Amino acid sequence: VAHLLWIGHLPTAAELAEFQKKLEANRNLPKSVVDVLRLLPPDTLPMDALRTGLSALGAIEQTAFAEAPDLDQAIAIAARFPAILADFFRLRAGKEPVTPKPGHNTAQSYLWQLLGTEPEERHWKPLETYLVLLADHGMNASTFTARVIASTQSDLVSALTGGVGALKGPLHGGAPSKVLDMLNEIGTADNVDNWLTQALDRGDRLMGFGHRVYKAEDPRAEILREMARTASDPDFFALSKTTEDRTLALLNERKPGRRLYTNVEFYSAAVLAAVGLPGDMFTPTFAVARSVGWSAHVLEQVSNNRLIRPQSQFVGPHDKKFVPIDQR
Amino acid sequence: VAHLLWIGHLPTAAELAEFQKKLEANRNLPKSVVDVLRLLPPDTLPMDALRTGLSALGAIEQTAFAEAPDLDQAIAIAARFPAILADFFRLRAGKEPVTPKPGHNTAQSYLWQLLGTEPEERHWKPLETYLVLLADHGMNASTFTARVIASTQSDLVSALTGGVGALKGPLHGGAPSKVLDMLNEIGTADNVDNWLTQALDRGDRLMGFGHRVYKAEDPRAEILREMARTASDPDFFALSKTTEDRTLALLNERKPGRRLYTNVEFYSAAVLAAVGLPGDMFTPTFAVARSVGWSAHVLEQVSNNRLIRPQSQFVGPHDKKFVPIDQR
Repeated sequence: VAHLLWIGHLPTAAELAEFQKKLEANRNLPKSVVDVLRLLPPDTLPMDALRTGLSALGAIEQTAFAEAPDLDQAIAIAARFPAILADFFRLRAGKEPVTPKPGHNTAQSYLWQLLGTEPEERHWKPLETYLVLLADHGMNASTFTARVIASTQSDLVSALTGGVGALKGPLHGGAPSKVLDMLNEIGTADNVDNWLTQALDRGDRLMGFGHRVYKAEDPRAEILREMARTASDPDFFALSKTTEDRTLALLNERKPGRRLYTNVEFYSAAVLAAVGLPGDMFTPTFAVARSVGWSAHVLEQVSNNRLIRPQSQFVGPHDKKFVPIDQR
Repeated sequence: VAHLLWIGHLPTAAELAEFQKKLEANRNLPKSVVDVLRLLPPDTLPMDALRTGLSALGAIEQTAFAEAPDLDQAIAIAARFPAILADFFRLRAGKEPVTPKPGHNTAQSYLWQLLGTEPEERHWKPLETYLVLLADHGMNASTFTARVIASTQSDLVSALTGGVGALKGPLHGGAPSKVLDMLNEIGTADNVDNWLTQALDRGDRLMGFGHRVYKAEDPRAEILREMARTASDPDFFALSKTTEDRTLALLNERKPGRRLYTNVEFYSAAVLAAVGLPGDMFTPTFAVARSVGWSAHVLEQVSNNRLIRPQSQFVGPHDKKFVPIDQR
């Protein structure tokens, strides 16, 4: 799918083999970038670590990113996203980073570098599907950020560092771990109604429902639900499914006509937890997926660029007097 | 002016004193951020060092930026911009960073930390005027980037890191050093016509002229020109002024009706060079100024937020077939 987004078509078997080889050749992180990650305290937010490690990569390998963004740069960065996160994940636990292993695809390599053990198919397969599903999604806020930055003729690392910062926000990619928090708080399927009623009475926003664009079920949620059904612990899946069903029923009762549906984040939580990731790695793993879409958009932007620079309208008072101190 | 942009009015003398004290109290950089800067190779682009140091600051002091962006955070970040750049500037030359000195304003502190000597008024005064002139400029690309990032409810450091990345682009803030390069290439006032004619014949873009919004002289250029007249070496000013005059005349001959005027970058080069900065610190110094405007816009954005998420229209082919390898 990265090949499709970057080059325009799904690869032949030969193209895929060559493409995987290129990704593989780019997975190692320069030592100085790892040393930057070592300087971050263990309680650093993984999205902050990713933003900093990525920026440091661009600074340290600036000659690789000095020319206009191109395919080689997109590969070089996307291949490093998992390494930055995995290395920080191990360092914060007092463990040393794990060197990437030849023959792994991206999902396998990410789990290998995170956990240091050969990933099982029941883990890397759902992760791979997750990475494909989340690879791109039109002109969302982080993608738009990357395009605005690239439109100034800045470099690809700057564009993607901005994308990471935007994805971090809870109104964009920052919410899937909050779904997990909510499900953990609910605890068991028989507590769902009680918990949801109280939350809605307080006017709380329920995580994992509603989307700016989709006013129907997010098609990605359907696939993730089916993956969660087979990959999750059965009790956890039951809790998730009951919470989903009751939330939709209650939202429909209380906010009829709002057309709030399950979004991509709701079952992302169940799938990523089943894969073995802790909650604070959910949004960074979303970034691993989206790094491909960001680069694809940047490549499109620079191929036919025009500076993105909106006008704004001043709506404040026009009669303010500004008298400097020394003239008062 | 930072007080005006962040709080809404020019300060009284008492407010100014308190405000300066707050800035002063925030100028020191955490040791780990300096250590991150130490890891960057000496030939790192200063904008990449700023982007990385700023991101590291946000990671290392994440609790300070965990809540929604506010005035204290804006002060804490803007006060550190000069330190990040100055520390990197010294480290790349093999020198140790200089501790900020009480009683300095922002322009004085920046020069003090860069050069390690007490700045003369003929240097810090023009720099201060430059910082004021460049502090904000409506909805330019970097400011818009910061607002898009903040609109996801991400943090202030993420928003400003994106702003730095956008400002780096030569279509935005990345060009003032290119003005210096151009003037150095021209060399002397009597070579101006010859050089410009050749450049225009080749179809080159002349740096420091034209603006997306202004179709008249940029009012900032006027003030910077007068500052350059008094602050610059007289020969360099003569070279700049002759280049400006002849460029405007030649552009008007060759592209009548295009309304290309001198922009803010043209005399920024002369002023910043007169202040003692090398060309590759021009754009980063622009960022020091603009950090104030970026934060002001972010504070405005979060005070009445709506996610900035444009829609796009697919204009590619609709009849493509996507057959996965294993189903061909």
